[in-house]
Amino acid sequence: MSNTKVLPLLEPEVSEAVAPCCPPLTERPFTAEEAETAAGMFKALGDPVRLRLFSAVASHEGGEACVCDISDVGVSQPTVSHHLKKLKEAGLLTSERRGTWVYYRVEPSVLAAMGKLLTIAPAAA
Amino acid sequence: MSNTKVLPLLEPEVSEAVAPCCPPLTERPFTAEEAETAAGMFKALGDPVRLRLFSAVASHEGGEACVCDISDVGVSQPTVSHHLKKLKEAGLLTSERRGTWVYYRVEPSVLAAMGKLLTIAPAAA
Repeated sequence: MSNTKVLPLLEPEVSEAVAPCCPPLTERPFTAEEAETAAGMFKALGDPVRLRLFSAVASHEGGEACVCDISDVGVSQPTVSHHLKKLKEAGLLTSERRGTWVYYRVEPSVLAAMGKLLTIAPAAA
Repeated sequence: MSNTKVLPLLEPEVSEAVAPCCPPLTERPFTAEEAETAAGMFKALGDPVRLRLFSAVASHEGGEACVCDISDVGVSQPTVSHHLKKLKEAGLLTSERRGTWVYYRVEPSVLAAMGKLLTIAPAAA
């Protein structure tokens, strides 16, 4: 192996702010804009392989994982990378390169926001 | 008090059992089977129009709505019907015909199950 030093030259890749978008689904009809945002997050989790990868990252030791940790879902490495990219684009994962590997981490605020969408609001009048 | 017997006169239309399928996403990696089930529910909400319709039903007076109540999303009636069918197939809505109209209702157990998926489990060891 090499004894190359890992220099922290790179700033962590920060995804765009992922603000909670919407009220609970049961509170009032969503506007078109709210629906657009929230549907993007649901869609990202609407694929079995992506969901397995997301769950693998979310439940991994320390709440983060590199591709090397989570490739056990029966698809090729490029496919894994493709799905991780989609999850990042939806704001569900953030990533940071450290040395050779890119580490993925769940964005807890997004998870919380999605959970809130699915809470049951008091019955409408 | 009475010792009246409760007579099961009406069997409500029961959708296929929609059992909570999976642990929180942060608890452990999903199995392929769990991911398949959960991804189906997320996918159903992963379309903006479908999400607006779902939200319209979920937030409607009494927790149910007929197509006549919720067509205000800028798509044709057949498209509305198509999306409502998809939501039913995913187990997110149940429906019941009463007279001329079909009424849709959110399946609360499914909403709860999806909410549970998105809760944040204690950090993995």
